[in-house]
Amino acid sequence: MSTRSAGETKRVRLGPEERRLQLITLGAEMLVDRSLEEVSVDDIAKQAGISRGLLFHYFASKQEFHEAIARHVSTEFFTAIMPNRELSLFDMLRDSIERFVDYATEHSASYRSVLRGPASVTPDMADYVNETRGAIADLIVSELPLPPEDPDLARLTLAIRGWIAFVEETILTWMIDKPISREALVDLLVESLPALALSPALIAALQG
Amino acid sequence: MSTRSAGETKRVRLGPEERRLQLITLGAEMLVDRSLEEVSVDDIAKQAGISRGLLFHYFASKQEFHEAIARHVSTEFFTAIMPNRELSLFDMLRDSIERFVDYATEHSASYRSVLRGPASVTPDMADYVNETRGAIADLIVSELPLPPEDPDLARLTLAIRGWIAFVEETILTWMIDKPISREALVDLLVESLPALALSPALIAALQG
Repeated sequence: MSTRSAGETKRVRLGPEERRLQLITLGAEMLVDRSLEEVSVDDIAKQAGISRGLLFHYFASKQEFHEAIARHVSTEFFTAIMPNRELSLFDMLRDSIERFVDYATEHSASYRSVLRGPASVTPDMADYVNETRGAIADLIVSELPLPPEDPDLARLTLAIRGWIAFVEETILTWMIDKPISREALVDLLVESLPALALSPALIAALQG
Repeated sequence: MSTRSAGETKRVRLGPEERRLQLITLGAEMLVDRSLEEVSVDDIAKQAGISRGLLFHYFASKQEFHEAIARHVSTEFFTAIMPNRELSLFDMLRDSIERFVDYATEHSASYRSVLRGPASVTPDMADYVNETRGAIADLIVSELPLPPEDPDLARLTLAIRGWIAFVEETILTWMIDKPISREALVDLLVESLPALALSPALIAALQG
């Protein structure tokens, strides 16, 4: 897909917003086999069929370009799993998890690279990955009917953060040889949140 | 501690095994702020007060030296959390988790570096970290009274693998500002394994 769009754009004049997005998307695709810092401005400009100078018309510096890529990848993922608030709490969890699994499966190489590859330890990307994990944790905590002064809140926040790592690792391991069905994987992930993070009393309150 | 032992050894003649272990230990300590590939043979030799040539008397190549460091770090960690088989199953879990938390706390910089830093994504270190995770998962599965043909085994193995990531991430997050007590953290981690991985029927079988 990237090759085709890159080929097409050599003949097409893009508007500023489209051009910016095209450059960011090409950069994001490069994260499959290299770290963010290794995403070369020259390679991207070449693929997009523009000059290096024109790329710097859209991004003030290489640093700014790399930050835009990291933000794009995080936002794309976070948007893909955004809860549908028209559903009940447990259905919302299942629905988001299904989209989490599908996003990871459809972007398996770059998903693995961002979480476990060289890109994951460059300071920028590590920050964005961490912020995304924090945002997911906040999203979940905000859905729970807990008063801010609840003594269990610190433990719950910590457990939810750990649960996100559980989901990431379970999906990464599952993708290697898919030892169980997608449906069984989704069941495991859905059931794991209340099992790991919520007290029996809180689960009863949510269901009741 | 490392500075002192490095200082002492300039005056002390070490036997081959002690010298080898000293060089590996100095290398392991360097993982706090650099990747395995950045562990410099020259720096290590200097710290140990020996020549670069003598270091290569103990290790055939830089690669072999790096592998010895990675193996040492993994083995040290794995040994630190080895279950005490004189305990009952649930006490064994608590005891190992307490040692997991204590090991991570006592080696917090290198623990974080090996799991999340540049060292974690060099191929050698990633292999050793993955092997250690696999070995912990196998250890847990082998303690469970499940027949090899149990249909739940694939799901359980996957869940335990994810649970190890849950434990790692929860401990890493906890170490930042320790929002709950060590005791509450241990409780959370101990309770999470049966809650996550085991069916209610299996838990009843283990307790009964």
